[in-house]
Amino acid sequence: MKVQKEQVFIDFSAIDWEHPAEGIRRKVMAYGDQLMAVYVEFAKGAVGALHHHPHLQITYIQSGSFDVTIGGVTTRQKGGDFYYIPADVVHGVVALEESVLVDFFTPMREDFVPKERPAMETAGA
Amino acid sequence: MKVQKEQVFIDFSAIDWEHPAEGIRRKVMAYGDQLMAVYVEFAKGAVGALHHHPHLQITYIQSGSFDVTIGGVTTRQKGGDFYYIPADVVHGVVALEESVLVDFFTPMREDFVPKERPAMETAGA
Repeated sequence: MKVQKEQVFIDFSAIDWEHPAEGIRRKVMAYGDQLMAVYVEFAKGAVGALHHHPHLQITYIQSGSFDVTIGGVTTRQKGGDFYYIPADVVHGVVALEESVLVDFFTPMREDFVPKERPAMETAGA
Repeated sequence: MKVQKEQVFIDFSAIDWEHPAEGIRRKVMAYGDQLMAVYVEFAKGAVGALHHHPHLQITYIQSGSFDVTIGGVTTRQKGGDFYYIPADVVHGVVALEESVLVDFFTPMREDFVPKERPAMETAGA
């Protein structure tokens, strides 16, 4: 497979911010059809509302702290911690201070793919 | 699906370090059969040797800087940047300073699963 440099090396400064909700901004950083990474900053008190999706998700809490709710259970987590969302389980967060997390999804969230950056196909492409 | 608290909320302090290579230590943080997150610290000069695997991988560079090689192309990346490894493409890193990255794999790396923490099954489990 020939590597397309701009699709495998993604500079933080090259990606635009999106503003999906009050006090939240994100960069959809890296993705192919089967895996996606999204960097998300939260202002203090910002709410990632309860929702669910068929994609598996693991989130890395890069800094700050959150009350994280998964499947009706709420736990306080902080920078360095991770959480795992099984498919279709309802989840959400509340940022207790300025905080950053990085979400990973499999398969990718098609609804998050920027029009100007189509996803790479997986193996065999 | 009933959430098992210790499998969905993973505290950094609860996971043991492993030492896969000189100057490298890691924590296998979160995983189910289709997705895995691994936190990796590098000493200055430590080498993640060139290798390949059928798993798709996205890596978040949490801090520091690396020379990252993917498919024969080498680029310098720093904290905040991401890289994407298509299936079976040869890749490796050299840490230019004390650095941290977080690797995500789909499907999970079965070879990384600690015996005492079997993986959660995916949807429907």
